[in-house]
Amino acid sequence: MTSAPIHNRYEKYRKMLTEIADLEKIIALMQWDQEVNMPSAANAFRARQISRMAAQHHEMAVSEDYYDVLASLLDDDTLNNHQQMNVQRSMEDYQQEKRLPSEFVVRLSEAVAKSHQGWVDAQKENNFRLLEPHLEQIVALKREQAQLLGYKDHPYDALLNNYEKGLTVVELDEVFTGLKHQLGKLLDEIRGARATAPPSLKMVFPRQKQLDLCRVIASEFGFDFSRGRLDLSAHPFSLDLNPRDVRITTRIQEEDLMESLSSVIHEVGHGLYGQGLSLKEYGLPGGEAASLSIHESQSRLWENQVGRSEAFVNGYYQLISNYFPEVLKDISAFDFFRAINQVRPSFIRTSADEITYHFHILIRYELEKELISGAMEVSYLPQGWKEKYQKYLGLEVPDDNRGVLQDLHWAHGDIGYFPTYSLGSLYGAQFYAAAEKAIPDLDEHIRHKHYKPLLKWLKKNIFAHGRLFTSKELCEQVTGEPLNYKYFDEYARKKYRIVYGIK
Amino acid sequence: MTSAPIHNRYEKYRKMLTEIADLEKIIALMQWDQEVNMPSAANAFRARQISRMAAQHHEMAVSEDYYDVLASLLDDDTLNNHQQMNVQRSMEDYQQEKRLPSEFVVRLSEAVAKSHQGWVDAQKENNFRLLEPHLEQIVALKREQAQLLGYKDHPYDALLNNYEKGLTVVELDEVFTGLKHQLGKLLDEIRGARATAPPSLKMVFPRQKQLDLCRVIASEFGFDFSRGRLDLSAHPFSLDLNPRDVRITTRIQEEDLMESLSSVIHEVGHGLYGQGLSLKEYGLPGGEAASLSIHESQSRLWENQVGRSEAFVNGYYQLISNYFPEVLKDISAFDFFRAINQVRPSFIRTSADEITYHFHILIRYELEKELISGAMEVSYLPQGWKEKYQKYLGLEVPDDNRGVLQDLHWAHGDIGYFPTYSLGSLYGAQFYAAAEKAIPDLDEHIRHKHYKPLLKWLKKNIFAHGRLFTSKELCEQVTGEPLNYKYFDEYARKKYRIVYGIK
Repeated sequence: MTSAPIHNRYEKYRKMLTEIADLEKIIALMQWDQEVNMPSAANAFRARQISRMAAQHHEMAVSEDYYDVLASLLDDDTLNNHQQMNVQRSMEDYQQEKRLPSEFVVRLSEAVAKSHQGWVDAQKENNFRLLEPHLEQIVALKREQAQLLGYKDHPYDALLNNYEKGLTVVELDEVFTGLKHQLGKLLDEIRGARATAPPSLKMVFPRQKQLDLCRVIASEFGFDFSRGRLDLSAHPFSLDLNPRDVRITTRIQEEDLMESLSSVIHEVGHGLYGQGLSLKEYGLPGGEAASLSIHESQSRLWENQVGRSEAFVNGYYQLISNYFPEVLKDISAFDFFRAINQVRPSFIRTSADEITYHFHILIRYELEKELISGAMEVSYLPQGWKEKYQKYLGLEVPDDNRGVLQDLHWAHGDIGYFPTYSLGSLYGAQFYAAAEKAIPDLDEHIRHKHYKPLLKWLKKNIFAHGRLFTSKELCEQVTGEPLNYKYFDEYARKKYRIVYGIK
Repeated sequence: MTSAPIHNRYEKYRKMLTEIADLEKIIALMQWDQEVNMPSAANAFRARQISRMAAQHHEMAVSEDYYDVLASLLDDDTLNNHQQMNVQRSMEDYQQEKRLPSEFVVRLSEAVAKSHQGWVDAQKENNFRLLEPHLEQIVALKREQAQLLGYKDHPYDALLNNYEKGLTVVELDEVFTGLKHQLGKLLDEIRGARATAPPSLKMVFPRQKQLDLCRVIASEFGFDFSRGRLDLSAHPFSLDLNPRDVRITTRIQEEDLMESLSSVIHEVGHGLYGQGLSLKEYGLPGGEAASLSIHESQSRLWENQVGRSEAFVNGYYQLISNYFPEVLKDISAFDFFRAINQVRPSFIRTSADEITYHFHILIRYELEKELISGAMEVSYLPQGWKEKYQKYLGLEVPDDNRGVLQDLHWAHGDIGYFPTYSLGSLYGAQFYAAAEKAIPDLDEHIRHKHYKPLLKWLKKNIFAHGRLFTSKELCEQVTGEPLNYKYFDEYARKKYRIVYGIK
């Protein structure tokens, strides 16, 4: 007869988390709208509204009522294992959030709003100095945040922890050192083999046709348009409001089909994850994405392991040619496959190929670590940026817009975020290798546009766990071993052997 | 030396109202998104989120803190006249809102969310019975609301007051009795003169071209796209988030150019008002629209007095023909003018002509008054609807979708709202008559696409006052007399003399 009140407590917990999630999603909607729809003249109104909702969200997430419910459930052994894990994750979240005073949350949110505008102005003038004072404030706040959150070895660990629970500089350094070495070698080999370049795909692909094609492919991959949308925005992104409202965006350039196609497939990867999360567990850890890197592993896996494979191209080339018959009439499917897998150092992260991409991340990781440790001043950033692009990619960065101003992350206070992109790519390769073992003839399925077996496997092995496990735990569980960059290396070598004829 | 704290109190009042307005606008954004973007599968999530924000909005609007600030300012004679009027209006709002307990606000909001879904389902099945139980609940709640709000003569007065401060059944009955008589006569004369019908405009106008043309006209009328947007939605509407973010929508039917054109011009009328409100007074009565009927007067004035005038057609016919040269090649500007001014009884309010439109409203007004007084049961509505369409428009309503299910208002709890459409049309005609007196050669200006003098006059005489005055007060102030339907009658007679050749 004691189960009723316990059941009620768990229901109370669920109700509180639903409320917290609702506030979070209202904020997310306001941000999505700002990016996709809102006239930028109204930025100040929106910034104030978001700031206020963020403060309210924080207050709920650290309220005593909420703590009492959590604490009472924590040592309640009548909960089943899944419920216990939900409560444990929530308690960790509470403790993390509790370390930040409300006034700090408001200060950070206001600084970010101003800094966003500073970034817009700086981009317009192609001049980092317009962002500099704002970014100085952001970095100071993030250093303050690291102190508030606490850390053992490096203040950057505290920030990393916001995005990847338990990840440290020591671990990341190890990953990047290995990756840098392996990919450096591969890059050299590709450079040496540049003789047989495929035809360029820089032609004119009408915008509406690109969008139509993207919608067809998104739908065939399994993205459910009755529970989601695809819009245009300056920077492609995805948003999970709930499993019945998942929004992805892309951008379209008339002379570059792959820009839209790969963006859409990338965001569809995010979207499939969002639509595949548990509806019943909305707002609870069990119904949320595991982490940024696991979210990114899904987008990378669909974009690269699937969307840049020979099997995909073979499956879709006829359809793609039907959309653009004149443009593609002299290009074979194999040449198309080679063309979309070209490796070439470039200035802009978001249009980088799969290999050099990791160097873009490495550079940002090294720089932001130094900003947070205090080893580098914000004013030195453009110079530091140039030196590293010279060192790692052999490029002379010509200006701020093609350099330090290209990403919005730092201006938005997202420091410690970039590494999750590389981790996502590595996790994606490792998950895909596991899927290949588990699903007989996966390559054949892809060749026949048959994505259900892969999606089903991802749902069962990844989506179903929400964020009950950390990225590390999930990786071990799904693939039988910790994160290992050799899977990405093997995948890349196998592909570039074909594309560039290297051994 | 006592002015500082007073000044601070007024600033505190302004800050509180800004917060209240922000919550209201967040709700409005969620509703806009639901209408324009959101997959309908996510309705339950959005309904819950809106409901919660509505409760929060109500709590702020009736909080003791807020009351204390208002009360302290109310008898503060160091405020200037404008400030005093702001405070007075706010105190009236407070008292109105205070009459509704929070639990009632939540109950109503939840009932509306369910009823919305009931309406969607009923429309799908073309069957009023699916909406009936929900509507019964809504009507019961609105009757309860009338009791909570209080009234002197008729419970419907209490609901009217939500939309038009101070308006009563007695006044409305008088307006509609006169209007019904005058327009009935005009309708008979038009029927008698039907010999010389203009060519039909039912042709194929490509959708994208319609949208492009609408954007050009909206912009030339003065709608500022850097502070607003135009989107597509099932039902055209407009939304003021703030003077820098005003959103209008339209719908496009390929075989009906006037559907989109008149919708856009109508919504542009709303939009110009929204963009013309005081930025500095955001959230304060001085920065808000005067009332629903005054908002509607703006949309009607631009849609009808301007957009259906011979002067407008003469000014734009060349451009319109350029967009659709093949379609319009055999139609003269004068025939186009006559074609867009045809009067013909029809089932659907939103596509009614200017004359029969008022009968659509009269019918709804009579029905909802009886629902609220208790003289009619909800179950009788479809029958009551049919009888009145037979009586006033001589039409046999064939089914619920072309009858009682066509509007969302009642399902949304908006009872007492419909009359504001007719009032808007009458105010629009009366304002335009005043503008014609004040602006020499207004007709010539319109003919030369020169809208600035009219917009400037509206800004000065209407927009600038926010809602410091009631609709009645504003009307007297702008036109020198109370609302008088003779202006609409004169405008209509003058036009239909030309269109139908009646005297």
